[in-house]
Amino acid sequence: MIVIKVGGSEGIDLDLLCDDVAGLARDGVPLVLVHGGSHRTNRVAEALGHPPRFVTSPSGYTSRHTDRRTLEIFEMVYCGEINKGVVERLQRRGVNAVGLSGLDGRTWEGPRKKAIRAIEDGRVRVLRDSWTGKVERVNTGLIQTLFDGGFVPVLTPPAASFDGEAINVDGDRAAAATAAALGAETLLLLSNVPGLLRDFPDEASLVPAVARAEIDAASEHAEGRMRIKLLGAREALDGGVGRVVLGDARGADPVTNALEGKGTVIA
Amino acid sequence: MIVIKVGGSEGIDLDLLCDDVAGLARDGVPLVLVHGGSHRTNRVAEALGHPPRFVTSPSGYTSRHTDRRTLEIFEMVYCGEINKGVVERLQRRGVNAVGLSGLDGRTWEGPRKKAIRAIEDGRVRVLRDSWTGKVERVNTGLIQTLFDGGFVPVLTPPAASFDGEAINVDGDRAAAATAAALGAETLLLLSNVPGLLRDFPDEASLVPAVARAEIDAASEHAEGRMRIKLLGAREALDGGVGRVVLGDARGADPVTNALEGKGTVIA
Repeated sequence: MIVIKVGGSEGIDLDLLCDDVAGLARDGVPLVLVHGGSHRTNRVAEALGHPPRFVTSPSGYTSRHTDRRTLEIFEMVYCGEINKGVVERLQRRGVNAVGLSGLDGRTWEGPRKKAIRAIEDGRVRVLRDSWTGKVERVNTGLIQTLFDGGFVPVLTPPAASFDGEAINVDGDRAAAATAAALGAETLLLLSNVPGLLRDFPDEASLVPAVARAEIDAASEHAEGRMRIKLLGAREALDGGVGRVVLGDARGADPVTNALEGKGTVIA
Repeated sequence: MIVIKVGGSEGIDLDLLCDDVAGLARDGVPLVLVHGGSHRTNRVAEALGHPPRFVTSPSGYTSRHTDRRTLEIFEMVYCGEINKGVVERLQRRGVNAVGLSGLDGRTWEGPRKKAIRAIEDGRVRVLRDSWTGKVERVNTGLIQTLFDGGFVPVLTPPAASFDGEAINVDGDRAAAATAAALGAETLLLLSNVPGLLRDFPDEASLVPAVARAEIDAASEHAEGRMRIKLLGAREALDGGVGRVVLGDARGADPVTNALEGKGTVIA
Protein backbone atom coordinates (compact mmCIF):
# COMPACT_ATOMS: atom_id res chain seq x y z
CA MET A 1 0.00 0.00 0.00
CA ILE A 2 1.28 3.45 -0.89
CA VAL A 3 -0.14 6.88 -0.17
CA ILE A 4 0.85 9.51 -2.71
CA LYS A 5 0.39 13.18 -1.85
CA VAL A 6 0.87 15.67 -4.67
CA GLY A 7 0.91 19.34 -3.86
CA GLY A 8 -0.96 22.17 -5.52
CA SER A 9 1.93 24.49 -6.27
CA GLU A 10 2.85 25.97 -9.62
CA GLY A 11 4.82 23.71 -11.95
CA ILE A 12 3.29 20.39 -10.96
CA ASP A 13 2.21 18.37 -13.98
CA LEU A 14 -0.98 16.45 -13.17
CA ASP A 15 -1.10 14.79 -16.59
CA LEU A 16 2.30 13.16 -16.12
CA LEU A 17 1.46 12.32 -12.52
CA CYS A 18 -1.74 10.58 -13.61
CA ASP A 19 0.12 8.67 -16.36
CA ASP A 20 2.35 7.26 -13.65
CA VAL A 21 -0.42 6.62 -11.09
CA ALA A 22 -2.51 4.88 -13.77
CA GLY A 23 0.38 2.54 -14.55
CA LEU A 24 0.69 1.53 -10.91
CA ALA A 25 -3.07 1.17 -10.49
CA ARG A 26 -3.28 -1.06 -13.57
CA ASP A 27 -0.49 -3.19 -12.09
CA GLY A 28 -2.70 -3.69 -9.06
CA VAL A 29 -0.66 -1.64 -6.57
CA PRO A 30 -3.10 -0.54 -3.83
CA LEU A 31 -2.83 3.22 -3.52
CA VAL A 32 -4.52 6.36 -2.29
CA LEU A 33 -3.85 9.63 -4.08
CA VAL A 34 -4.07 12.83 -2.00
CA HIS A 35 -3.82 16.24 -3.66
CA GLY A 36 -3.70 19.93 -2.87
CA GLY A 37 -4.76 23.01 -4.82
CA SER A 38 -3.11 26.00 -3.20
CA HIS A 39 -1.89 27.85 -6.26
CA ARG A 40 -5.22 27.65 -8.12
CA THR A 41 -7.09 28.64 -4.96
CA ASN A 42 -5.00 31.81 -4.77
CA ARG A 43 -5.81 32.65 -8.40
CA VAL A 44 -9.55 32.00 -8.04
CA ALA A 45 -9.76 33.84 -4.72
CA GLU A 46 -8.13 36.87 -6.35
CA ALA A 47 -10.48 36.69 -9.35
CA LEU A 48 -13.49 36.48 -7.03
CA GLY A 49 -12.36 39.55 -5.08
CA HIS A 50 -11.45 37.70 -1.87
CA PRO A 51 -7.64 37.53 -2.10
CA PRO A 52 -5.72 34.97 -0.03
CA ARG A 53 -4.25 35.88 3.31
CA PHE A 54 -1.46 33.84 4.85
CA VAL A 55 -0.67 33.88 8.53
CA THR A 56 2.30 32.67 10.57
CA SER A 57 1.68 30.92 13.87
CA PRO A 58 3.76 31.75 16.95
CA SER A 59 5.59 28.43 16.38
CA GLY A 60 6.59 29.59 12.91
CA TYR A 61 4.30 27.65 10.57
CA THR A 62 2.62 29.55 7.74
CA SER A 63 -0.93 28.69 6.66
CA ARG A 64 -3.92 30.09 4.78
CA HIS A 65 -6.31 32.14 6.91
CA THR A 66 -9.57 30.36 6.12
CA ASP A 67 -12.65 32.42 6.86
CA ARG A 68 -16.01 31.07 5.69
CA ARG A 69 -15.82 32.67 2.25
CA THR A 70 -12.27 31.36 1.80
CA LEU A 71 -13.48 27.87 2.79
CA GLU A 72 -16.10 27.99 0.04
CA ILE A 73 -13.56 29.09 -2.56
CA PHE A 74 -11.15 26.45 -1.23
CA GLU A 75 -13.81 23.75 -1.71
CA MET A 76 -14.59 25.01 -5.21
CA VAL A 77 -10.97 24.57 -6.26
CA TYR A 78 -9.81 21.57 -4.22
CA CYS A 79 -13.03 19.48 -4.40
CA GLY A 80 -14.38 20.81 -7.68
CA GLU A 81 -11.82 21.89 -10.24
CA ILE A 82 -8.77 19.91 -9.07
CA ASN A 83 -10.38 16.79 -7.60
CA LYS A 84 -12.68 16.20 -10.56
CA GLY A 85 -9.86 17.12 -12.94
CA VAL A 86 -7.69 14.38 -11.41
CA VAL A 87 -10.56 11.87 -11.44
CA GLU A 88 -11.21 12.70 -15.09
CA ARG A 89 -7.53 12.21 -15.97
CA LEU A 90 -7.53 8.82 -14.23
CA GLN A 91 -10.84 7.75 -15.80
CA ARG A 92 -9.46 8.69 -19.24
CA ARG A 93 -6.53 6.38 -18.44
CA GLY A 94 -8.86 3.51 -17.53
CA VAL A 95 -8.60 3.83 -13.75
CA ASN A 96 -11.90 3.72 -11.86
CA ALA A 97 -11.14 6.63 -9.54
CA VAL A 98 -13.46 8.09 -6.90
CA GLY A 99 -12.82 11.65 -5.74
CA LEU A 100 -13.52 12.53 -2.12
CA SER A 101 -12.85 15.18 0.46
CA GLY A 102 -12.04 14.35 4.06
CA LEU A 103 -15.59 15.47 4.87
CA ASP A 104 -17.04 12.59 2.86
CA GLY A 105 -17.60 9.61 5.10
CA ARG A 106 -15.90 11.73 7.82
CA THR A 107 -12.69 10.21 6.48
CA TRP A 108 -10.55 12.93 8.08
CA GLU A 109 -11.81 14.07 11.45
CA GLY A 110 -10.42 16.40 14.07
CA PRO A 111 -10.98 19.49 16.19
CA ARG A 112 -11.79 22.84 14.67
CA LYS A 113 -9.82 25.86 15.81
CA LYS A 114 -12.39 28.66 15.69
CA ALA A 115 -9.76 31.22 16.60
CA ILE A 116 -6.11 31.08 15.68
CA ARG A 117 -3.09 32.99 16.95
CA ALA A 118 -0.96 34.65 14.32
CA ILE A 119 2.11 36.86 14.35
CA GLU A 120 1.45 40.14 12.55
CA ASP A 121 3.89 43.07 12.68
CA GLY A 122 5.78 41.27 15.41
CA ARG A 123 2.73 40.95 17.69
CA VAL A 124 0.49 37.97 18.43
CA ARG A 125 -3.07 38.57 17.23
CA VAL A 126 -6.16 36.38 17.52
CA LEU A 127 -8.04 35.76 14.27
CA ARG A 128 -11.65 34.58 14.56
CA ASP A 129 -14.00 33.06 11.93
CA SER A 130 -11.34 30.42 11.29
CA TRP A 131 -12.45 27.23 9.54
CA THR A 132 -9.25 25.31 10.14
CA GLY A 133 -8.22 22.35 12.21
CA LYS A 134 -6.16 19.23 12.38
CA VAL A 135 -6.74 15.60 11.43
CA GLU A 136 -6.65 13.58 14.63
CA ARG A 137 -8.58 10.55 13.46
CA VAL A 138 -8.70 8.84 10.08
CA ASN A 139 -11.90 6.85 9.66
CA THR A 140 -10.72 4.32 7.10
CA GLY A 141 -14.16 2.77 6.53
CA LEU A 142 -14.92 4.61 3.30
CA ILE A 143 -11.44 4.04 1.84
CA GLN A 144 -11.60 0.33 2.72
CA THR A 145 -15.09 0.11 1.23
CA LEU A 146 -13.78 1.66 -1.99
CA PHE A 147 -10.77 -0.69 -2.10
CA ASP A 148 -13.10 -3.67 -1.65
CA GLY A 149 -15.16 -2.41 -4.57
CA GLY A 150 -12.11 -2.01 -6.83
CA PHE A 151 -12.02 1.80 -6.82
CA VAL A 152 -9.01 4.10 -6.46
CA PRO A 153 -9.65 6.87 -3.88
CA VAL A 154 -8.53 10.42 -4.66
CA LEU A 155 -8.64 12.49 -1.46
CA THR A 156 -8.35 16.19 -0.74
CA PRO A 157 -9.04 18.64 2.10
CA PRO A 158 -11.24 19.86 3.75
CA ALA A 159 -11.66 17.49 6.69
CA ALA A 160 -14.63 17.23 9.05
CA SER A 161 -14.58 18.75 12.51
CA PHE A 162 -15.90 16.57 15.34
CA ASP A 163 -19.14 18.54 14.87
CA GLY A 164 -19.27 17.77 11.14
CA GLU A 165 -18.12 21.20 9.94
CA ALA A 166 -15.77 21.51 6.95
CA ILE A 167 -12.28 22.53 8.12
CA ASN A 168 -9.17 23.34 6.16
CA VAL A 169 -6.35 21.04 7.21
CA ASP A 170 -2.79 20.60 6.04
CA GLY A 171 -2.74 18.12 3.16
CA ASP A 172 0.73 16.72 3.86
CA ARG A 173 -0.08 15.92 7.47
CA ALA A 174 -3.50 14.55 6.49
CA ALA A 175 -1.75 12.27 3.98
CA ALA A 176 0.68 11.20 6.71
CA ALA A 177 -2.18 10.36 9.07
CA THR A 178 -3.89 8.43 6.25
CA ALA A 179 -0.75 6.42 5.50
CA ALA A 180 -0.38 5.56 9.18
CA ALA A 181 -4.06 4.60 9.57
CA LEU A 182 -3.96 2.36 6.50
CA GLY A 183 -0.69 0.71 7.57
CA ALA A 184 0.94 1.91 4.34
CA GLU A 185 4.53 0.88 3.72
CA THR A 186 5.37 4.08 1.84
CA LEU A 187 4.25 7.72 1.85
CA LEU A 188 5.32 9.95 -1.04
CA LEU A 189 5.12 13.73 -0.58
CA LEU A 190 5.55 15.17 -4.08
CA SER A 191 5.86 18.88 -4.80
CA ASN A 192 7.60 21.36 -7.08
CA VAL A 193 11.08 20.90 -5.59
CA PRO A 194 13.35 17.83 -5.84
CA GLY A 195 13.14 17.17 -2.09
CA LEU A 196 14.69 18.73 0.99
CA LEU A 197 17.27 21.32 -0.07
CA ARG A 198 20.12 22.19 2.27
CA ASP A 199 20.33 25.59 0.59
CA PHE A 200 16.86 26.46 -0.79
CA PRO A 201 16.27 27.10 -3.72
CA ASP A 202 19.57 25.60 -4.92
CA GLU A 203 18.45 22.22 -6.30
CA ALA A 204 22.06 20.96 -6.28
CA SER A 205 21.84 21.06 -2.48
CA LEU A 206 19.34 18.15 -2.35
CA VAL A 207 19.62 16.10 0.81
CA PRO A 208 19.25 12.46 -0.37
CA ALA A 209 18.42 10.93 3.00
CA VAL A 210 17.35 11.96 6.49
CA ALA A 211 17.29 9.51 9.40
CA ARG A 212 14.38 9.62 11.84
CA ALA A 213 16.63 11.12 14.53
CA GLU A 214 17.84 13.87 12.18
CA ILE A 215 14.39 15.27 11.27
CA ASP A 216 14.37 18.01 13.90
CA ALA A 217 17.81 19.23 12.90
CA ALA A 218 16.86 19.13 9.21
CA SER A 219 13.73 21.20 9.95
CA GLU A 220 15.83 24.07 11.20
CA HIS A 221 17.22 24.91 7.79
CA ALA A 222 14.08 23.96 5.82
CA GLU A 223 11.89 26.64 4.21
CA GLY A 224 8.20 27.06 5.12
CA ARG A 225 6.30 24.32 3.26
CA MET A 226 9.18 21.88 3.69
CA ARG A 227 9.06 22.25 7.46
CA ILE A 228 5.47 21.03 7.42
CA LYS A 229 6.40 18.13 5.14
CA LEU A 230 9.12 17.09 7.58
CA LEU A 231 6.60 17.30 10.42
CA GLY A 232 4.24 15.09 8.38
CA ALA A 233 7.09 12.69 7.63
CA ARG A 234 7.87 12.34 11.33
CA GLU A 235 4.19 11.78 12.15
CA ALA A 236 3.98 9.09 9.45
CA LEU A 237 7.06 7.26 10.74
CA ASP A 238 5.78 7.52 14.31
CA GLY A 239 2.50 6.00 13.02
CA GLY A 240 4.30 2.96 11.60
CA VAL A 241 4.86 3.96 7.96
CA GLY A 242 8.07 2.33 6.68
CA ARG A 243 9.49 5.26 4.76
CA VAL A 244 8.61 8.69 3.46
CA VAL A 245 10.04 10.10 0.24
CA LEU A 246 9.97 13.83 -0.56
CA GLY A 247 9.97 13.87 -4.34
CA ASP A 248 9.56 16.02 -7.42
CA ALA A 249 6.22 16.21 -9.30
CA ARG A 250 7.33 18.48 -12.14
CA GLY A 251 8.27 15.86 -14.72
CA ALA A 252 7.55 12.38 -16.04
CA ASP A 253 7.31 9.34 -13.73
CA PRO A 254 7.18 11.31 -10.47
CA VAL A 255 5.78 8.39 -8.48
CA THR A 256 8.11 5.74 -9.94
CA ASN A 257 11.09 8.03 -9.37
CA ALA A 258 10.17 8.63 -5.75
CA LEU A 259 9.56 4.91 -5.16
CA GLU A 260 13.07 4.32 -6.52
CA GLY A 261 14.40 6.72 -3.89
CA LYS A 262 14.90 9.83 -6.02
CA GLY A 263 14.40 12.81 -3.73
CA THR A 264 14.85 12.80 0.03
CA VAL A 265 14.27 9.43 1.67
CA ILE A 266 13.25 9.56 5.33
CA ALA A 267 13.25 6.26 7.20
CA MET B 1 -35.58 3.19 -2.00
CA ILE B 2 -36.15 6.80 -3.00
CA VAL B 3 -34.13 9.07 -5.25
CA ILE B 4 -34.46 12.76 -4.39
CA LYS B 5 -33.34 15.37 -6.92
CA VAL B 6 -33.17 18.95 -5.74
CA GLY B 7 -32.54 21.67 -8.28
CA GLY B 8 -30.08 24.53 -8.11
CA SER B 9 -32.44 27.43 -8.76
CA GLU B 10 -32.87 30.50 -6.64
CA GLY B 11 -35.12 30.14 -3.60
CA ILE B 12 -34.29 26.54 -2.75
CA ASP B 13 -33.48 26.12 0.94
CA LEU B 14 -30.77 23.46 1.34
CA ASP B 15 -30.79 23.73 5.15
CA LEU B 16 -34.46 22.77 5.37
CA LEU B 17 -33.98 20.11 2.69
CA CYS B 18 -31.14 18.55 4.68
CA ASP B 19 -33.18 18.65 7.91
CA ASP B 20 -35.78 16.56 6.13
CA VAL B 21 -33.33 14.22 4.39
CA ALA B 22 -31.48 13.65 7.67
CA GLY B 23 -34.71 12.64 9.36
CA LEU B 24 -35.41 10.03 6.68
CA ALA B 25 -31.82 8.78 6.68
CA ARG B 26 -31.88 8.39 10.46
CA ASP B 27 -35.11 6.40 10.11
CA GLY B 28 -33.19 4.04 7.82
CA VAL B 29 -34.92 4.94 4.55
CA PRO B 30 -32.47 4.03 1.76
CA LEU B 31 -32.02 7.11 -0.37
CA VAL B 32 -29.82 8.83 -2.93
CA LEU B 33 -29.74 12.63 -3.03
CA VAL B 34 -29.02 14.26 -6.40
CA HIS B 35 -28.52 18.03 -6.65
CA GLY B 36 -27.95 20.78 -9.18
CA GLY B 37 -26.23 24.15 -8.95
CA SER B 38 -27.36 26.20 -11.92
CA HIS B 39 -28.04 29.53 -10.23
CA ARG B 40 -24.71 29.64 -8.34
CA THR B 41 -22.86 28.54 -11.48
CA ASN B 42 -24.30 31.53 -13.32
CA ARG B 43 -23.17 33.90 -10.56
CA VAL B 44 -19.64 32.44 -10.35
CA ALA B 45 -19.24 32.32 -14.13
CA GLU B 46 -20.16 36.01 -14.29
CA ALA B 47 -17.75 36.88 -11.47
CA LEU B 48 -14.96 34.98 -13.25
CA GLY B 49 -15.58 36.83 -16.51
CA HIS B 50 -17.01 33.85 -18.43
CA PRO B 51 -20.75 34.56 -18.34
CA PRO B 52 -23.23 31.74 -18.95
CA ARG B 53 -24.67 31.13 -22.38
CA PHE B 54 -27.88 29.19 -22.86
CA VAL B 55 -28.85 27.56 -26.12
CA THR B 56 -32.07 26.11 -27.45
CA SER B 57 -32.01 22.87 -29.42
CA PRO B 58 -34.06 22.45 -32.61
CA SER B 59 -36.45 20.27 -30.56
CA GLY B 60 -37.03 23.18 -28.18
CA TYR B 61 -35.03 22.24 -25.07
CA THR B 62 -32.86 24.92 -23.46
CA SER B 63 -29.49 24.04 -21.92
CA ARG B 64 -26.20 25.57 -20.81
CA HIS B 65 -23.57 25.80 -23.55
CA THR B 66 -20.67 24.06 -21.83
CA ASP B 67 -17.29 24.84 -23.33
CA ARG B 68 -14.20 23.61 -21.47
CA ARG B 69 -13.90 26.70 -19.29
CA THR B 70 -17.60 26.51 -18.43
CA LEU B 71 -17.15 22.83 -17.51
CA GLU B 72 -14.41 23.77 -15.05
CA ILE B 73 -16.56 26.48 -13.46
CA PHE B 74 -19.50 24.05 -13.43
CA GLU B 75 -17.38 21.49 -11.53
CA MET B 76 -16.20 24.14 -9.08
CA VAL B 77 -19.76 24.99 -8.15
CA TYR B 78 -21.58 21.65 -8.49
CA CYS B 79 -18.84 19.35 -7.14
CA GLY B 80 -17.08 21.84 -4.87
CA GLU B 81 -19.25 24.51 -3.33
CA ILE B 82 -22.68 22.86 -3.51
CA ASN B 83 -21.78 19.16 -3.16
CA LYS B 84 -19.49 19.69 -0.19
CA GLY B 85 -21.95 22.20 1.27
CA VAL B 86 -24.68 19.54 1.19
CA VAL B 87 -22.35 16.86 2.60
CA GLU B 88 -21.36 19.24 5.40
CA ARG B 89 -25.02 19.99 6.21
CA LEU B 90 -25.76 16.25 6.37
CA GLN B 91 -22.65 15.47 8.44
CA ARG B 92 -23.63 18.22 10.89
CA ARG B 93 -26.99 16.46 11.18
CA GLY B 94 -25.33 13.13 11.94
CA VAL B 95 -25.71 11.57 8.47
CA ASN B 96 -22.61 9.91 7.07
CA ALA B 97 -22.90 11.37 3.58
CA VAL B 98 -20.49 10.85 0.68
CA GLY B 99 -20.48 13.41 -2.13
CA LEU B 100 -19.82 12.23 -5.66
CA SER B 101 -20.08 13.34 -9.24
CA GLY B 102 -21.22 11.02 -11.99
CA LEU B 103 -17.57 10.89 -13.06
CA ASP B 104 -16.60 9.14 -9.82
CA GLY B 105 -16.74 5.41 -10.27
CA ARG B 106 -18.16 6.18 -13.75
CA THR B 107 -21.52 6.19 -12.01
CA TRP B 108 -23.17 8.10 -14.84
CA GLU B 109 -21.90 7.17 -18.28
CA GLY B 110 -22.94 8.12 -21.78
CA PRO B 111 -21.90 9.57 -25.12
CA ARG B 112 -20.38 13.02 -25.41
CA LYS B 113 -21.80 15.40 -27.99
CA LYS B 114 -18.74 17.33 -29.14
CA ALA B 115 -20.84 19.57 -31.32
CA ILE B 116 -24.41 20.61 -30.67
CA ARG B 117 -27.07 22.17 -32.86
CA ALA B 118 -28.70 25.30 -31.53
CA ILE B 119 -31.28 27.76 -32.78
CA GLU B 120 -29.91 31.30 -32.83
CA ASP B 121 -31.74 34.19 -34.52
CA GLY B 122 -34.09 31.66 -36.10
CA ARG B 123 -31.28 29.69 -37.75
CA VAL B 124 -29.68 26.37 -36.81
CA ARG B 125 -26.02 26.79 -35.89
CA VAL B 126 -23.44 24.19 -34.88
CA LEU B 127 -21.54 24.92 -31.66
CA ARG B 128 -18.25 23.07 -31.13
CA ASP B 129 -16.11 22.61 -27.98
CA SER B 130 -19.19 21.20 -26.26
CA TRP B 131 -18.64 19.14 -23.11
CA THR B 132 -22.16 17.84 -22.84
CA GLY B 133 -23.85 14.51 -23.23
CA LYS B 134 -26.48 12.19 -21.94
CA VAL B 135 -26.57 9.46 -19.29
CA GLU B 136 -27.19 6.18 -21.07
CA ARG B 137 -25.83 3.82 -18.45
CA VAL B 138 -25.88 4.02 -14.66
CA ASN B 139 -23.10 1.92 -13.15
CA THR B 140 -24.61 1.28 -9.75
CA GLY B 141 -21.51 -0.43 -8.31
CA LEU B 142 -20.25 2.57 -6.38
CA ILE B 143 -23.69 3.49 -5.00
CA GLN B 144 -24.31 -0.12 -3.92
CA THR B 145 -20.85 -0.25 -2.33
CA LEU B 146 -21.67 2.91 -0.38
CA PHE B 147 -25.07 1.56 0.72
CA ASP B 148 -23.40 -1.63 1.92
CA GLY B 149 -20.96 0.49 3.93
CA GLY B 150 -23.77 2.52 5.54
CA PHE B 151 -23.11 5.76 3.64
CA VAL B 152 -25.64 8.13 2.04
CA PRO B 153 -24.60 9.07 -1.54
CA VAL B 154 -24.98 12.68 -2.68
CA LEU B 155 -24.64 12.83 -6.46
CA THR B 156 -24.25 15.66 -8.93
CA PRO B 157 -23.24 16.20 -12.57
CA PRO B 158 -20.95 16.00 -14.50
CA ALA B 159 -21.14 12.46 -15.85
CA ALA B 160 -18.40 10.49 -17.63
CA SER B 161 -18.32 10.09 -21.38
CA PHE B 162 -17.62 6.58 -22.68
CA ASP B 163 -14.03 7.86 -23.08
CA GLY B 164 -13.85 9.02 -19.45
CA GLU B 165 -14.26 12.74 -20.17
CA ALA B 166 -16.34 14.94 -17.87
CA ILE B 167 -19.63 15.90 -19.55
CA ASN B 168 -22.43 18.16 -18.40
CA VAL B 169 -25.69 16.23 -18.32
CA ASP B 170 -29.20 17.12 -17.28
CA GLY B 171 -29.57 16.45 -13.56
CA ASP B 172 -33.28 15.61 -13.65
CA ARG B 173 -32.83 12.99 -16.36
CA ALA B 174 -29.70 11.64 -14.64
CA ALA B 175 -31.71 11.29 -11.43
CA ALA B 176 -34.45 9.51 -13.39
CA ALA B 177 -31.94 7.07 -14.88
CA THR B 178 -30.48 6.49 -11.40
CA ALA B 179 -33.89 5.78 -9.90
CA ALA B 180 -34.62 3.29 -12.69
CA ALA B 181 -31.23 1.57 -12.37
CA LEU B 182 -31.60 1.21 -8.60
CA GLY B 183 -35.17 -0.08 -8.87
CA ALA B 184 -36.37 2.85 -6.75
CA GLU B 185 -40.06 2.99 -5.89
CA THR B 186 -40.18 6.79 -5.90
CA LEU B 187 -38.38 9.65 -7.63
CA LEU B 188 -38.84 13.18 -6.29
CA LEU B 189 -37.95 16.12 -8.55
CA LEU B 190 -37.90 19.14 -6.25
CA SER B 191 -37.44 22.70 -7.48
CA ASN B 192 -38.55 26.28 -6.81
CA VAL B 193 -42.12 25.82 -8.05
CA PRO B 194 -44.94 23.78 -6.44
CA GLY B 195 -45.04 21.33 -9.36
CA LEU B 196 -46.44 21.42 -12.88
CA LEU B 197 -48.41 24.64 -13.38
CA ARG B 198 -51.14 24.78 -15.98
CA ASP B 199 -50.60 28.53 -16.23
CA PHE B 200 -46.96 29.27 -15.28
CA PRO B 201 -46.10 31.16 -13.04
CA ASP B 202 -49.56 31.12 -11.41
CA GLU B 203 -49.05 28.74 -8.50
CA ALA B 204 -52.80 28.34 -8.06
CA SER B 205 -52.81 26.50 -11.39
CA LEU B 206 -50.93 23.49 -9.92
CA VAL B 207 -51.76 20.23 -11.67
CA PRO B 208 -52.04 17.68 -8.84
CA ALA B 209 -51.71 14.55 -10.95
CA VAL B 210 -50.65 13.49 -14.44
CA ALA B 211 -51.22 9.97 -15.74
CA ARG B 212 -48.45 8.29 -17.77
CA ALA B 213 -50.53 8.66 -20.94
CA GLU B 214 -51.04 12.38 -20.34
CA ILE B 215 -47.36 13.36 -20.07
CA ASP B 216 -46.97 14.37 -23.70
CA ALA B 217 -50.05 16.56 -23.60
CA ALA B 218 -48.92 18.11 -20.30
CA SER B 219 -45.51 18.91 -21.82
CA GLU B 220 -47.09 21.11 -24.42
CA HIS B 221 -48.08 23.79 -21.95
CA ALA B 222 -45.07 23.35 -19.63
CA GLU B 223 -42.33 25.99 -19.43
CA GLY B 224 -38.68 25.18 -20.22
CA ARG B 225 -37.26 23.41 -17.17
CA MET B 226 -40.58 21.69 -16.48
CA ARG B 227 -40.59 20.12 -19.94
CA ILE B 228 -37.28 18.41 -19.12
CA LYS B 229 -38.63 17.26 -15.75
CA LEU B 230 -41.63 15.70 -17.49
CA LEU B 231 -39.27 13.99 -19.94
CA GLY B 232 -37.29 12.66 -16.96
CA ALA B 233 -40.49 11.55 -15.26
CA ARG B 234 -41.51 9.58 -18.34
CA GLU B 235 -38.07 7.99 -18.58
CA ALA B 236 -38.23 7.01 -14.90
CA LEU B 237 -41.68 5.42 -15.26
CA ASP B 238 -40.56 3.61 -18.42
CA GLY B 239 -37.59 2.33 -16.39
CA GLY B 240 -39.85 0.80 -13.74
CA VAL B 241 -40.02 3.57 -11.12
CA GLY B 242 -43.41 3.45 -9.37
CA ARG B 243 -44.15 7.15 -9.20
CA VAL B 244 -42.55 10.53 -9.73
CA VAL B 245 -43.51 13.59 -7.73
CA LEU B 246 -42.68 17.12 -8.87
CA GLY B 247 -42.46 19.05 -5.61
CA ASP B 248 -41.48 22.31 -3.97
CA ALA B 249 -38.08 22.74 -2.26
CA ARG B 250 -38.57 26.29 -0.98
CA GLY B 251 -39.86 25.51 2.51
CA ALA B 252 -39.77 23.09 5.42
CA ASP B 253 -40.24 19.33 4.94
CA PRO B 254 -39.90 19.36 1.13
CA VAL B 255 -39.21 15.62 0.92
CA THR B 256 -41.91 14.55 3.37
CA ASN B 257 -44.42 16.79 1.59
CA ALA B 258 -43.60 15.33 -1.80
CA LEU B 259 -43.75 11.77 -0.44
CA GLU B 260 -47.24 12.63 0.85
CA GLY B 261 -48.20 13.62 -2.66
CA LYS B 262 -47.98 17.39 -2.40
CA GLY B 263 -47.03 18.68 -5.82
CA THR B 264 -47.66 16.91 -9.11
CA VAL B 265 -47.85 13.13 -8.85
CA ILE B 266 -47.03 11.25 -12.04
CA ALA B 267 -47.75 7.52 -12.03
